[in-house]
Amino acid sequence: MDERNLTMLVDFYELTMGNGFLENGCGEEIAYFDMFYRKAPDDAAYAIAAGLEQVIAYLNNLSFTDEDIAYLRGKGMFCEAFLDYLRNFRFACDVWAVPEGTPVFPGEPILTVRGPAIQAQFIETMVLLSINHQSLIATKANRIVTAAQGRPVMEFGSRRAQGYDGAVYGARAAYIGGVAGTACTIADRAFRIPALGTMAHSFVQLYDTELDAFRAYAKIYPDDCTLLVDTYSVLHSGIPNAITVFKELEAEGHRGKGIRIDSGDMAYLSKKARKMLDAAGLEYVGIVASNSLDEYIIRDLIMQGAQINSFGVGERLVTSKSEPVFGGVYKLAAVEKDGVIIPKIKISENAVKVTNPSFKTVWRLFDNESGKALADVLTMYDENIDDSKPYEIFDPIHTYKRKTVTNFTAKRLLVPVFEKGKCIYESPSLPDIQRYCKAQLETIWEEVKRFENPQTYFVDLSQRLWELKYTMLKNNKM
Amino acid sequence: MDERNLTMLVDFYELTMGNGFLENGCGEEIAYFDMFYRKAPDDAAYAIAAGLEQVIAYLNNLSFTDEDIAYLRGKGMFCEAFLDYLRNFRFACDVWAVPEGTPVFPGEPILTVRGPAIQAQFIETMVLLSINHQSLIATKANRIVTAAQGRPVMEFGSRRAQGYDGAVYGARAAYIGGVAGTACTIADRAFRIPALGTMAHSFVQLYDTELDAFRAYAKIYPDDCTLLVDTYSVLHSGIPNAITVFKELEAEGHRGKGIRIDSGDMAYLSKKARKMLDAAGLEYVGIVASNSLDEYIIRDLIMQGAQINSFGVGERLVTSKSEPVFGGVYKLAAVEKDGVIIPKIKISENAVKVTNPSFKTVWRLFDNESGKALADVLTMYDENIDDSKPYEIFDPIHTYKRKTVTNFTAKRLLVPVFEKGKCIYESPSLPDIQRYCKAQLETIWEEVKRFENPQTYFVDLSQRLWELKYTMLKNNKM
Repeated sequence: MDERNLTMLVDFYELTMGNGFLENGCGEEIAYFDMFYRKAPDDAAYAIAAGLEQVIAYLNNLSFTDEDIAYLRGKGMFCEAFLDYLRNFRFACDVWAVPEGTPVFPGEPILTVRGPAIQAQFIETMVLLSINHQSLIATKANRIVTAAQGRPVMEFGSRRAQGYDGAVYGARAAYIGGVAGTACTIADRAFRIPALGTMAHSFVQLYDTELDAFRAYAKIYPDDCTLLVDTYSVLHSGIPNAITVFKELEAEGHRGKGIRIDSGDMAYLSKKARKMLDAAGLEYVGIVASNSLDEYIIRDLIMQGAQINSFGVGERLVTSKSEPVFGGVYKLAAVEKDGVIIPKIKISENAVKVTNPSFKTVWRLFDNESGKALADVLTMYDENIDDSKPYEIFDPIHTYKRKTVTNFTAKRLLVPVFEKGKCIYESPSLPDIQRYCKAQLETIWEEVKRFENPQTYFVDLSQRLWELKYTMLKNNKM
Repeated sequence: MDERNLTMLVDFYELTMGNGFLENGCGEEIAYFDMFYRKAPDDAAYAIAAGLEQVIAYLNNLSFTDEDIAYLRGKGMFCEAFLDYLRNFRFACDVWAVPEGTPVFPGEPILTVRGPAIQAQFIETMVLLSINHQSLIATKANRIVTAAQGRPVMEFGSRRAQGYDGAVYGARAAYIGGVAGTACTIADRAFRIPALGTMAHSFVQLYDTELDAFRAYAKIYPDDCTLLVDTYSVLHSGIPNAITVFKELEAEGHRGKGIRIDSGDMAYLSKKARKMLDAAGLEYVGIVASNSLDEYIIRDLIMQGAQINSFGVGERLVTSKSEPVFGGVYKLAAVEKDGVIIPKIKISENAVKVTNPSFKTVWRLFDNESGKALADVLTMYDENIDDSKPYEIFDPIHTYKRKTVTNFTAKRLLVPVFEKGKCIYESPSLPDIQRYCKAQLETIWEEVKRFENPQTYFVDLSQRLWELKYTMLKNNKM
């Protein structure tokens, strides 16, 4: 899947600008861009970074075919020197990024690019597309998994995904966010995300009776038998028939695995189902629920004592239905002339839209006692946070809010990914990313992870960066 | 793009069921499935069908590689006979579908499949994925284009799309729905959807001053010069600088094309901008707006007299943000045994979820005088609607609501696409689909196309189909 050449999946203006840079002789000028987001989906305080592996694959495969060049020439807008540049394109940028699975907060760089202006500008579209999409789904998945309180969540959304990659990379991102598996077979084949599934209503309907259908299925999968019980009536036919078949399996030395309920009131039906199964001595048979679920419904179901052992979550996960856009942006932070970094700032009347200037890095400060993350601090790239000494952090807007942290460990979040166009980062395995995500989330206070009205996590600026930013703001004439 | 082999993009249960059918000796039994939707997004009364061309490409490319088979064998759930079946898979189904760009209504088949149960079941995931996604975006695009009242709408959403295909096929679907172009270069290259774009804020920032940036751009694109005016201040720097550059262009015999406003209050700023441009004698310079737009905001802006000549619409179009799921389903309608069709029905306590049984077709009745669509009627496949005679339609729920239509033309909506696995349908060109969509929408009453509280369009059943359905419902024990 990752070997497709998506070089031309680019907003057209990246090309008109690139041609402009080249014709004006500033294509090789060094530019710095940051990708960051301003607001997490669903009014959450955090998001889970994902999609870096696909950005790497894209950058490694960046090349224009003769057909691409011919197509571009046909647009009549690009000079031959620019087309030559593209034909001989060799990616030469430096890239830093936070590893996939890292909880990230508004305003901090998730990815930083340094390189020739044409190139650093050109890759904007795919950097944003990849990371916005997968971070959106990883974040949503993590919320749903959190709501399920340890019960496995399966990603079931392919048929409602927004395009093929929406399904495939959606499954990948959901796995990073913590789901146990997927219904999407190609995601298992490509990424080894455990795929599973049993039957649809049509399977049951294809047989003369529900009992025939259940027996037919049990015959073939005696040790992996989950029966869909809501084709006709959950309580009056589905569960009684499932019990019949599970008892038949028991008599033959097998153990039925579960029932799946895909419609109706899950709290009521699952409690009834549990009682009926238990009364038949089928305490070991699990109950799977799978109808229009999301984190809120799952939380409510559990609060209501629903007897559900695992959840299948479809459209509301794979599209992040309640908020289907991750608003990551890619902003110019600096240019470099003759080796000197000239910081750039994007002013806006909307204060949260003002960017943080210059070449920066991001630190996370962990409390040595609790292990919890205390704050993130953006500093100039060449700044160091010496965690052997007390360090004062302050709110960059309400600067009177100050706090001195002690007994902490400072960790850089951005790691080098490309050096002069060469990939120097090896993506961890997907299970490792999932484990890393889970471990990192354990360092985030519960108050920050709350669904409603979460505590805002500190994302502060170093004194030096703050002074630069506010000097630039003051000197700018709006 | 369409040549990728996505055979394995399939819900795992299609495979466990297929294996089940085969092991139980009913894999070659003939099954009929309908794809339809129950509720249009955004509380609309209609949707635009799209995505068929990609379904056709998928079905034409359906084949399992040795690696696919090895992967499936490794799951330990499939018998060798089934794996052999897949290895030698030859698509053998009949498929009917409504042409792309057709306005379609809840409950009517958009696509019908007849074929061996294993196959007809297997293709469910990709049929739904393709048509759900593109119908979602085509429908949303059509609403936005309708709101713009003839002003061109550009699709600008790649960076916020849900995956690469979300961007590429999203641009395709948006074009079917009526957008004039896209920012997505690969969609132009692949589908000839006009791609365009000019500059980002970073282009302006890369230069020492905004005026330098505008001049640099105008020098290269003197006859295609749209300037982004909101990097610093729209009214105090962007427009004055744009006017300077457009007047310089004028002096050299060129005509500036437009300004783009990407933030702030579009109604206020566009009216001010129009006055400033006009006062400078630049009546011919257009105004493009492009910040978080959708059909509601565009409608309001136009109501408020905003002076906007064209709209660039991003995330809210490419993800259909207000409702990002098109809920198409794929339901068993019949099985065929020894040449006899046995209708199947899916019962639900929720009346709208009860399916329409048997092998059917869909007719649209057009009034010969007004040219408008009067109603759609689902009939048994072998029924005919003779439009030379009066025809009585009736509400299938409230059957006392009856109406006899006369002087009408009855047209079948579903056309043959595959016959015994062979594609017999040639997809029209994309511009032809767009034109067809526009023409078909002109046959739909304005009351049905209204955004809020639209009139429900009649989707009725023939007397014969109604009797079959209600007899099956009556005879079914819930």
